[in-house]
Amino acid sequence: MAVAEKMLGFMEKASWIRKMFEEGTRLKAVHGQDNVYDFSLGNPDVPPPERVIERMAALSRTMFHGYMANAGYPEVRAAVAARLGPVYGVDLTGDDIIMSCGAGGAMNVVLKAVLNPGDEVIALAPYFVEYGFYADNHGGKLVTAPCDGDFLPRMEAIADRITARTRAIILNSPNNPTGRVYPEETIRGLGALLENRPDITVISDEPYRAIVYDGRAVPSVLRHIPGSVVVTSASKELSLAGERIGYIAVNPAIPGKAELVGAMILATRILGFVNAPALMQKVLADCLHESVDVEIYRRRRDAMCSVLDGAGLTYAPPEGAFYLFVRSPVEDEVAFCAALLEERVLAVPGRGFGWPGYVRFTYCVDESIIRAAGPGIGRAVEKIRSR
Amino acid sequence: MAVAEKMLGFMEKASWIRKMFEEGTRLKAVHGQDNVYDFSLGNPDVPPPERVIERMAALSRTMFHGYMANAGYPEVRAAVAARLGPVYGVDLTGDDIIMSCGAGGAMNVVLKAVLNPGDEVIALAPYFVEYGFYADNHGGKLVTAPCDGDFLPRMEAIADRITARTRAIILNSPNNPTGRVYPEETIRGLGALLENRPDITVISDEPYRAIVYDGRAVPSVLRHIPGSVVVTSASKELSLAGERIGYIAVNPAIPGKAELVGAMILATRILGFVNAPALMQKVLADCLHESVDVEIYRRRRDAMCSVLDGAGLTYAPPEGAFYLFVRSPVEDEVAFCAALLEERVLAVPGRGFGWPGYVRFTYCVDESIIRAAGPGIGRAVEKIRSR
Repeated sequence: MAVAEKMLGFMEKASWIRKMFEEGTRLKAVHGQDNVYDFSLGNPDVPPPERVIERMAALSRTMFHGYMANAGYPEVRAAVAARLGPVYGVDLTGDDIIMSCGAGGAMNVVLKAVLNPGDEVIALAPYFVEYGFYADNHGGKLVTAPCDGDFLPRMEAIADRITARTRAIILNSPNNPTGRVYPEETIRGLGALLENRPDITVISDEPYRAIVYDGRAVPSVLRHIPGSVVVTSASKELSLAGERIGYIAVNPAIPGKAELVGAMILATRILGFVNAPALMQKVLADCLHESVDVEIYRRRRDAMCSVLDGAGLTYAPPEGAFYLFVRSPVEDEVAFCAALLEERVLAVPGRGFGWPGYVRFTYCVDESIIRAAGPGIGRAVEKIRSR
Repeated sequence: MAVAEKMLGFMEKASWIRKMFEEGTRLKAVHGQDNVYDFSLGNPDVPPPERVIERMAALSRTMFHGYMANAGYPEVRAAVAARLGPVYGVDLTGDDIIMSCGAGGAMNVVLKAVLNPGDEVIALAPYFVEYGFYADNHGGKLVTAPCDGDFLPRMEAIADRITARTRAIILNSPNNPTGRVYPEETIRGLGALLENRPDITVISDEPYRAIVYDGRAVPSVLRHIPGSVVVTSASKELSLAGERIGYIAVNPAIPGKAELVGAMILATRILGFVNAPALMQKVLADCLHESVDVEIYRRRRDAMCSVLDGAGLTYAPPEGAFYLFVRSPVEDEVAFCAALLEERVLAVPGRGFGWPGYVRFTYCVDESIIRAAGPGIGRAVEKIRSR
């Protein structure tokens, strides 16, 4: 047997999620794709903007597909910087941008660059389950600080978790799994809290920045926290999740910037990413003012809310991303997910996000599927309440 | 300062390579691109086959660019398996294939799946310098076994390095930096040597498999070593190095295959790769019978050999890839590289590959540049010999 012990443990832990995924696949095979209501996977299905497809096809033919510098094409980095400067309210140059294989790749590059063995990384619960693996990849340890009942950060909980070993704090707003957007005062407060800790890097994971509703804006971490970096991707904004294109934006005010950027570029190389996919870098640079039609997600959110309201379920106000974090009608949310599954409705138990008692619904499916799921969700709630 | 100590050390070590790269960039700015003879970088410049470009442009428009399963599209995995079975002389199915972000990504996925902290990975020197970083990424330790004077593996040297902690042996044939192809008897011998060590995985890094000369064939590791996996990419074979598309082929005979494949798929996810770039997966599946024009590289190799012969230099017989590993006329090959640099000729010192006293020349440049470099190389040799 040639498998690492730790990986055996990880696979054991991951196995119930996999079982659920397999059950979903089985249900779709038996009942047909359209008769299974799959709210489990955040796979953007809204088409990419037409210009994205057009540039992809055109650049395929005209560009050189070989290696470039590990940080990415200089002109792409410069274009990203020029676009982001006004968005974040800071002066950025190409030197502050490192192109990456998606936000997941970007997060690993940052953690590799900053973590010493045994260092601590704080994430705010509920949180994207991969953060624990990412910290562990580079010898770090994930520490979680719980949000409040509305799933917004509690500054005291964060302050309480900070130790001499803390090297990074991960923010994720708009949030997966809750769809909440962290308010500006929280970001400012965190900046104040970290004023005397230049050794702590705040990593703002923002792939859903463009997907917000009701005129809401996502505050700028780069503006309020000097020791911060943004990691993000075109996965959701341009519906290119499978193409693995993203980037890191480093705060020009971060202490020791040149060395940190150098470490991230080296990490991009030695982690085996080498560089962000060449074609998609150029596509992104040509489509920085494009976005998927957020109105589609907004309508789905409203449809999903009305279905959940109809079933008597409650949830945190969804302000962005394409997730709803719903309170389970019974304490054991895995039992609720099982009852949903009996109605061919797939959702993810909250304990996968460090927050039992809740269930995540993703609305990356047609409005018609959302509405059609209503009666089944209603029956599952009734059934589980009467058990 | 927020950079990890280890990364500071790595950057320090990498700095002289960077200085050389920067010197090359400076020279090109001063003297013009065509007046600098850059044999330092293995960046395939032969155009991709026309069908590759055509499929890329067409699939850009027609496919869904979202996530797929972490291992890759099932139909792509099946197509790769069907193509490789006859090449390697083993029965492969899609379950034996995991799509990756290039061979570098693939190597990291395999090492993550098999290494426990402190485990040893054997590489045969001279070797691709990244292997040391890759082993270290996952808590492993690189141990090197020197090749013979012709840069072919010495079985005794390998046997001598195997301990209870050995978990992986990396082969790289056709080899970077030597261009040698390891003979079939070596592969068979290694299989015999490992008969009682099912806990050791042989990782065969084969991105240059298709680039061989003089009718040579690369022996099948999968056929002769049950505990083996192949990691490779389309970087060189289809000139798509920047697009980061590759795969892992797992020997169907490997002990504990299902668990190992599961661990590799999980590693693909948690290392932040998530999946191999979607478009390039489909392009690869449609172009499995394509290859760049190897004849171009063959002619360049011959031109390079005649230039080096003319300068009185000796080298290992180059059978594949696009590298020549040349004996330095003086013991200190860095001094020779500096003399070459004075003639605007860029080559890489052998100590970067764990083999001082030699210099790597890459022939990813036009034949005309190779020929034009001749006089300068001759002068550098004369100058360094007379110092």
